Amino acid sequence: MALERVNSPEDLKKLSREELIVLAQDIRDAMLHRVSNKGGHVGPDFGAVELIIALHKVFNSPVDKFVFDVSHQCYPHKIITGRKFGFLDLDRYLEVSGYTNQDESEHDFFKIGHTSTSVSLATGLAKARDLRGVKENIIAIIGDGSLSGGEAFEGLNVASELNTNMIIIANDNDMSIAENHGGLYKNLRELRESNGQAQNNYFKSLGLDYIYVNKGNDLEALIEVFEKVKDIDHPIVVHVHTQKGKGLPYAEKDKETWHYGMPFDPETGEKRNSYSGGLSNDTAEFLMDKMEKDSTVAVVTSGTPTVLGFTRDRREKFAKQFIDVGIAEEQAVAMISGMAKNGGKPIYGVFSTFIQRTYDQLSQDLAINNNPATILIFGGGLGGMSDVTHLCWFDISLVSNIPNIVFLAPTSKEEYFAMLDWSIEYKGHPVAIRVPSQLSEDTGNVQKDFSDLNKYLVTEKGKDIAILGLGNFYKLGKEVKELLKENGIDATLINPRYASGIDETLLNELKAEHKLVVTLEDGVIDGGFGEKIARFYGASDMKVLNYGIKKEFTDRVAPDVAFKNNRLTKEQIVEDILKIVK
Amino acid sequence: MALERVNSPEDLKKLSREELIVLAQDIRDAMLHRVSNKGGHVGPDFGAVELIIALHKVFNSPVDKFVFDVSHQCYPHKIITGRKFGFLDLDRYLEVSGYTNQDESEHDFFKIGHTSTSVSLATGLAKARDLRGVKENIIAIIGDGSLSGGEAFEGLNVASELNTNMIIIANDNDMSIAENHGGLYKNLRELRESNGQAQNNYFKSLGLDYIYVNKGNDLEALIEVFEKVKDIDHPIVVHVHTQKGKGLPYAEKDKETWHYGMPFDPETGEKRNSYSGGLSNDTAEFLMDKMEKDSTVAVVTSGTPTVLGFTRDRREKFAKQFIDVGIAEEQAVAMISGMAKNGGKPIYGVFSTFIQRTYDQLSQDLAINNNPATILIFGGGLGGMSDVTHLCWFDISLVSNIPNIVFLAPTSKEEYFAMLDWSIEYKGHPVAIRVPSQLSEDTGNVQKDFSDLNKYLVTEKGKDIAILGLGNFYKLGKEVKELLKENGIDATLINPRYASGIDETLLNELKAEHKLVVTLEDGVIDGGFGEKIARFYGASDMKVLNYGIKKEFTDRVAPDVAFKNNRLTKEQIVEDILKIVK
Repeated sequence: MALERVNSPEDLKKLSREELIVLAQDIRDAMLHRVSNKGGHVGPDFGAVELIIALHKVFNSPVDKFVFDVSHQCYPHKIITGRKFGFLDLDRYLEVSGYTNQDESEHDFFKIGHTSTSVSLATGLAKARDLRGVKENIIAIIGDGSLSGGEAFEGLNVASELNTNMIIIANDNDMSIAENHGGLYKNLRELRESNGQAQNNYFKSLGLDYIYVNKGNDLEALIEVFEKVKDIDHPIVVHVHTQKGKGLPYAEKDKETWHYGMPFDPETGEKRNSYSGGLSNDTAEFLMDKMEKDSTVAVVTSGTPTVLGFTRDRREKFAKQFIDVGIAEEQAVAMISGMAKNGGKPIYGVFSTFIQRTYDQLSQDLAINNNPATILIFGGGLGGMSDVTHLCWFDISLVSNIPNIVFLAPTSKEEYFAMLDWSIEYKGHPVAIRVPSQLSEDTGNVQKDFSDLNKYLVTEKGKDIAILGLGNFYKLGKEVKELLKENGIDATLINPRYASGIDETLLNELKAEHKLVVTLEDGVIDGGFGEKIARFYGASDMKVLNYGIKKEFTDRVAPDVAFKNNRLTKEQIVEDILKIVK
Repeated sequence: MALERVNSPEDLKKLSREELIVLAQDIRDAMLHRVSNKGGHVGPDFGAVELIIALHKVFNSPVDKFVFDVSHQCYPHKIITGRKFGFLDLDRYLEVSGYTNQDESEHDFFKIGHTSTSVSLATGLAKARDLRGVKENIIAIIGDGSLSGGEAFEGLNVASELNTNMIIIANDNDMSIAENHGGLYKNLRELRESNGQAQNNYFKSLGLDYIYVNKGNDLEALIEVFEKVKDIDHPIVVHVHTQKGKGLPYAEKDKETWHYGMPFDPETGEKRNSYSGGLSNDTAEFLMDKMEKDSTVAVVTSGTPTVLGFTRDRREKFAKQFIDVGIAEEQAVAMISGMAKNGGKPIYGVFSTFIQRTYDQLSQDLAINNNPATILIFGGGLGGMSDVTHLCWFDISLVSNIPNIVFLAPTSKEEYFAMLDWSIEYKGHPVAIRVPSQLSEDTGNVQKDFSDLNKYLVTEKGKDIAILGLGNFYKLGKEVKELLKENGIDATLINPRYASGIDETLLNELKAEHKLVVTLEDGVIDGGFGEKIARFYGASDMKVLNYGIKKEFTDRVAPDVAFKNNRLTKEQIVEDILKIVK
């Protein structure tokens, strides 16, 4: 056990080469302890243990600064920099996030959870260092899967011209989340197979110096090359070939499954609880049926095929109609626009947090051209991911304020599939659908045609108070209605269905028998759905209460706590309502 | 004169080689007629005349489909495809936009005005073609300046794996808007200097087939190579070396100035009216003074240095502190975040329409990390660009709903510089400033410290009605107040200053003596500033009227018409107010 003596990079530097090898095993054991109990990124971190140890052996953190792309390889770094308790002590797991975080340690510089940002961020660190006239190494560590994102290219392209110290570690484990896609990965393979000597070299073509390390899990080899590039006076790419999942037999064998793991048995890899994945599997089955019947239907993902339920066998079965562009959301949105323009029926599936990566393509490539593509936004709302870098509640504000995009918020499984079925054939506008994560009950008589845009559905007619429960929060709306009933109020319940527009006719009609409209949305209030309603009624006598999520970045707040903090429990809402109407 | 016989690509195909050379001159004359009278893109189009003629000679538009990146090289294409009247006839200029537009012609497929999108859009056309099982050539024409944008990389990377017909013309005129930046441009130069034979080759490194054409203004050479690649069964890059501004002596000589021209004398190139550029020059002078005094102050642009007033001599003078990352907005935002984190004081200047290209970097790279960088957003509002691809009124909705970013909206020149002065030293949050284009008068006693966030300024105290005139529209607010006075109403006038937050104290105080709050903002209403005010007052007796720009894409609507269409004239606003209060 070497890890017990390591609480900082200085401690690590004191270890002998043999002890460092022991440390590598200790770090893997510590990581296994955490991820098998709590879940987390497995493959990328297990493959990078020697890499991170060697970096801390050679460089002098935090004077020398490491920037970890997506934080995918930061677990060993966290263990070395005083945070091993977050891995070894079940009771303290929550004190350490799964991502780098400058609030946790002076050895972290950014909160990073979206891919392809490390090189660009590091160019900033390097430039400011030079402006201040001090000396320190700036090191970006980027995995192969992140290189397909446009921001990574922009960063490399600019880094090349900085003419100053900057070290870019390209950790190439031949595998991002699912299989890698794109021409660049052929080049990385050529480089691996030629020991870095292939004629074509992406990094050199951008004017960057380049060095290849084949034995990327060999401490000696890594230390040697890092000693060589330390204090270098120009940007250099160190292309390191590592083995994803190294040290975990099941993860070495099935890299895709073990990119990220839910809690599992550390011996066998057997999952401790099964993850249903919401409507992902149902979505895949629905879409496969469509694709079989119509060869112009095609499904697009940007590196996360499983959110759409497309496991490897399904992707292979529909190879012509299933397109994985790699982690490249901008490309995905532009591509579906082009496909829709030329007679295709594309469906792009993406997590809420990643739709943020493509605002301008939604606006310029898709919406201005009004091409009828479909976008499925998964995981939106408080029930989704809670890490500060993966919050899933900005999509309503972002998408619904772009002209021409019809943004639908279904409330139940049947309504979701009715909307999806409709949108595939609809030619009027691009359609985005917020795949529901909190499902209301199916009614068996859902509408099939949504072409009459912005028409809200009154599901339960009452008076005095009207509740607009959007998408996920229709269910909450129903609960609020029931609690109001206990207080003698028979409220009207409405399923707005369209997050992107106002049903002026209905809203005007409500004025006759209602004095308060309550909006509920599972997204940030600012710029969201409810504010449109407040604006509509601004000059009238109708009172409006908007409920949603506060505009702030929160980190790993449990959903039940988040509901309370945002006054989103039915009790809190009814309390507010009663204050107004009684 | 060959052009008089050309009203379609078929007409062009009938011309002899000699007549095509005459046609090239005719097209240049037609373009000169338009741009010297109306302004427009000069350099890119003059350089690409032979290229576009050769494309239309060889390919069969619209079955074969051209996608013009940024539309920068589309003027010759427009002239050939039946729209020459928009160049030759002064009275019909406005019928033809400066960008491709599928509403104008079946030979156009997209409205494109932001860079780096053509290859991605074309991959979609190609994929849908294959899904439909038809045969047609898909051709993307992208200029060198657009290759620095991440979306272009993503497109090339994915195109490489399509294994199908796709032709990418890289029109390399060794010059984007200002000088090109980034390592990639060194590679393009190597390729030009080696006649395409250099060992390092960016396109080949992405697995793309490649062919080089040195004589990019030679019709014969172009036709020959296009004949060769027509109906190719895999993606190929045709790297064509053209001369920017070809045929216009002054534009050949000064490529930067002649990228885009305001109306000018066609003989001499002398500008017909001078363009003041709003506060650009003043901004440069202010920032140069700061940079001289503090070496950690640095200015960043993404390919548009002149919006910040940084002419070439100024850039050269401050070479260490002025960074042009090329057209790469994502890189710019990530870089300023890194700079601010490491002790730099970065200021990034960008047009409103292009801030859209970097939502996720604003949120993830900058705002989550709360690094104190400054962003200057130029040209925002109805007074800016009016082409549908360059609308400048989505920035308030986009930026102000991201947590942690302080978004300031100054009303006058002195307030703008006071805010900029403050933000450079402020360490609390990232700050974005919407550089005002409609200036209210300086008062001589502007506030210097804006750390007391979201504190609105009551500039004229009245009662009954309070007018919140944000930024540009503070001036309109003052006009509304004056017109109300003529109607016997003494309204309160408020400068909100902060577009991103609510002054709850003040808004509550207003309840005492006011019954109506009117918000005015020079941006899209949906998701904007005014809706936050409407939400705040939703459950109170205060009435609210929100004014701003409707959520829709409009194309080339003159500002005065746009004001009327959006009910933004003082007369319309006062009419609405009087209906409510009388």
